[in-house]
Amino acid sequence: MRRFTLDTGTGSRGSYDPERYERLSFVGATESFRDGTNTPRAFLERCLESVYELEPSVRAFAYFDAEAARLAADESTARYRAGRAIGPLDGCPFGIKDTIETKDMPMQQNAPLFKGWSGGRDAACVWALRQAGGVILGKTQVPEYAMGKSPPTRNPFDTARTAGGSSSGSGASVGARMVPCAIGNQTMASLIRPSSFNAVYGYKPTWGALNIGGMHPLAPSQDHIGPMAASLADAWVTARAIAERAGGHNGHPGLDGPLDLPEARRPARLVRLDTLGWLQIDDALRDLFERFLADLMDAGVEIVDRRDSTEVEALEQMLLYCDGFATDIVMYEARWPFLAYIDAYGRERAIGDTAYSRLQRGLEMTRDDYRAALAKRAAARQKVAEIGAGADGFITLASSGPAPFVERPNVDTDAPDRAGAHMETGSRSFISPWTMIGGPSWALPYFAVDGMPQGVQLMGVPDSDADIVAIAHWLDRFILEDPA
Amino acid sequence: MRRFTLDTGTGSRGSYDPERYERLSFVGATESFRDGTNTPRAFLERCLESVYELEPSVRAFAYFDAEAARLAADESTARYRAGRAIGPLDGCPFGIKDTIETKDMPMQQNAPLFKGWSGGRDAACVWALRQAGGVILGKTQVPEYAMGKSPPTRNPFDTARTAGGSSSGSGASVGARMVPCAIGNQTMASLIRPSSFNAVYGYKPTWGALNIGGMHPLAPSQDHIGPMAASLADAWVTARAIAERAGGHNGHPGLDGPLDLPEARRPARLVRLDTLGWLQIDDALRDLFERFLADLMDAGVEIVDRRDSTEVEALEQMLLYCDGFATDIVMYEARWPFLAYIDAYGRERAIGDTAYSRLQRGLEMTRDDYRAALAKRAAARQKVAEIGAGADGFITLASSGPAPFVERPNVDTDAPDRAGAHMETGSRSFISPWTMIGGPSWALPYFAVDGMPQGVQLMGVPDSDADIVAIAHWLDRFILEDPA
Repeated sequence: MRRFTLDTGTGSRGSYDPERYERLSFVGATESFRDGTNTPRAFLERCLESVYELEPSVRAFAYFDAEAARLAADESTARYRAGRAIGPLDGCPFGIKDTIETKDMPMQQNAPLFKGWSGGRDAACVWALRQAGGVILGKTQVPEYAMGKSPPTRNPFDTARTAGGSSSGSGASVGARMVPCAIGNQTMASLIRPSSFNAVYGYKPTWGALNIGGMHPLAPSQDHIGPMAASLADAWVTARAIAERAGGHNGHPGLDGPLDLPEARRPARLVRLDTLGWLQIDDALRDLFERFLADLMDAGVEIVDRRDSTEVEALEQMLLYCDGFATDIVMYEARWPFLAYIDAYGRERAIGDTAYSRLQRGLEMTRDDYRAALAKRAAARQKVAEIGAGADGFITLASSGPAPFVERPNVDTDAPDRAGAHMETGSRSFISPWTMIGGPSWALPYFAVDGMPQGVQLMGVPDSDADIVAIAHWLDRFILEDPA
Repeated sequence: MRRFTLDTGTGSRGSYDPERYERLSFVGATESFRDGTNTPRAFLERCLESVYELEPSVRAFAYFDAEAARLAADESTARYRAGRAIGPLDGCPFGIKDTIETKDMPMQQNAPLFKGWSGGRDAACVWALRQAGGVILGKTQVPEYAMGKSPPTRNPFDTARTAGGSSSGSGASVGARMVPCAIGNQTMASLIRPSSFNAVYGYKPTWGALNIGGMHPLAPSQDHIGPMAASLADAWVTARAIAERAGGHNGHPGLDGPLDLPEARRPARLVRLDTLGWLQIDDALRDLFERFLADLMDAGVEIVDRRDSTEVEALEQMLLYCDGFATDIVMYEARWPFLAYIDAYGRERAIGDTAYSRLQRGLEMTRDDYRAALAKRAAARQKVAEIGAGADGFITLASSGPAPFVERPNVDTDAPDRAGAHMETGSRSFISPWTMIGGPSWALPYFAVDGMPQGVQLMGVPDSDADIVAIAHWLDRFILEDPA
């Protein structure tokens, strides 16, 4: 295995060791279900052992139903025994982010207004996963409405640190081996950041390629759902299984490509992007990433960056301030439903201070401000399309360092929200650009910094998902191979 | 006034006389509120008189709250008296289609599963209308889930006839002068058809131009909301007021143009479209439409049709079968949430026979079938863009005749659904093409057939809404002027 590790010697050291960490892949276990040496029920029990051991300190779940999961896992076990397993996800335990509806569990969003709320239906992705034989183990924690007061969730590799946001519980539950895969969503950075922090393969598909029906809206033109998994195969198979059954949304035909993980394919050329994130990280992390790129170049991958191409430099300039206009777009679109909640229930009952302070930005905007932000997004997308036509993908970091420490704990989810009590979830400067672009992006858990996970991010132009995962597959083999 | 009337002498005659029918415009009454000769409360009481007189036979409403409306109208009256009226919709009574959420009334969709259901929030459009001073009078009837068993609603001009679907109650409530404006939605024909049947100005804006948040999804890539009103001004002002506050959706910046009705503008050239509908109507209705077009030509409007242009003929060929592929798109997208309801509650409890039989089409489709339908839609949109660049708009009929008779009454909304009990709501052959194109379309109540309303349909390329309403304004004046 190629080691890309870094020790700064500052703060406490986490427990993450890429060479010893055992990934809990479900797709990798299907052979053992088929030959009878293992069962989905036994797999679930292994997950539950992690839950019972770690949940008191990690707090990944907002709601949990072990007995319902055991019943579903038993049904799957019976299907395997009868030779009638539905497919590679039959019996797979899933965590579902608590911004997504399930028919049998509440969707509470860490918001007092939603305490005990249920729409009584499965979101499109949850419905699709159940059709594929998936076992829904519980709802994973989120900041209030995925943008406000932090949940009590902690990082499984160091509980003094955050698990990231907003798919906090989804990331922690996979990192802690409580589930092989959890569903998250991303409007700015919410899948990729917690994936990077929790040693997770996180996949944000092309905007529109997975049906978001039944996800609580934040900003429809930036909302994505996606899998966060223990392996590349678990993530890809989950996404394709959802698309095959529930399709895309808004007229997107849905994620394409093989139902199983595509063959590994070495990229001929990758565009390295710095983004604002590069200015925010220290030299040691920069060196680590440069070493990774140097190894790729040794393996025959051409790396193009802003110094080689005026077009890439032009894109970098566009991306430098994109978090600002992407936030404008998100907070303008978020006016509904949040203003409707405030109108119906009053400010105090409807939304906490942290979330409301973020929403302020949208309240102060005019429709012309929104239009101006849309135009900047469209220009950046156009530039990415031009550059992407001459490359196999884009590469950068998946976060600006490992998970930060939680300095001011805020673990009482029922306590009144207080400005300043917001848990630091880390920078999104490397991540929000590609949410805004709308193309596929992956967090790949290849680095370790101070015993904590740190991801690499691989991105592609919209609808290149099947090509990009083939490259991620090649990177995975590249990392696992012995460079000696 | 120019009369475009036709009497076939078949069946019973309706009570609609364009010259005597008094339109209940709210926007037209604002001057009287300002000068103190009238109040929003008095306006509401006039609406309520119509409700108490006609609702027992018309049955436009699924839920109704006169007292809440009176309180809101009194607040508006107080604002007018204090010289602080919010704008032209302050105090305007609205009906809201029962597929759209309101914070204080259930959304029941004529579906047993939704009996008493409420999400506890205002949909984006309802929230925006309240911000504009709107008074929500009630929820208007729909077929089950806007696609199944018909509601008990009858046509106010002849209660032996349908009010159309799926915005049945919205159309009937405006036609019966119970409200000056109601909100409907359209996925295939649901705004334009009941507008044509009920002498209503119905407006389907460009897809995306009005925020559909809080509308129960049917097929997101074809779902629109829009106003159905007593006048052009009421409809336009309502749509712009919604867009100004709630914006568009999915990254559309929202409907543009003046907040008030734009100045009338005579079109230089309109493209006349036949669609499949032309083959389905009788000679008398054809003659009526030809006479209308001849008058337009006399007034200096050039009318281009398939006989003049190979491009228009090519578009006609594309539109001839478009109801088929548009239905494919709709029913594929409708798989969620309806399959999730069936999964959670069982087929019998979740959905009636009529709606389920329609959904079957989506269940039988593959993702490749869906992709093929999307490609046909994209090709038709491209052709419309090409032709639209050389014209001011498109014109056709808004329905293939007046409202048909209800042959088999089915007025018990709580009765179990029965196949065959579906109320005939009329052909949508003139209407579904433009839903699929996504551009603006208007139903304009200019004809009368057998004492029943029959609309003309004016359409435009996507995002030409402000131009198209200016042309509709000119048509309105043209109809009202004395041709002598």
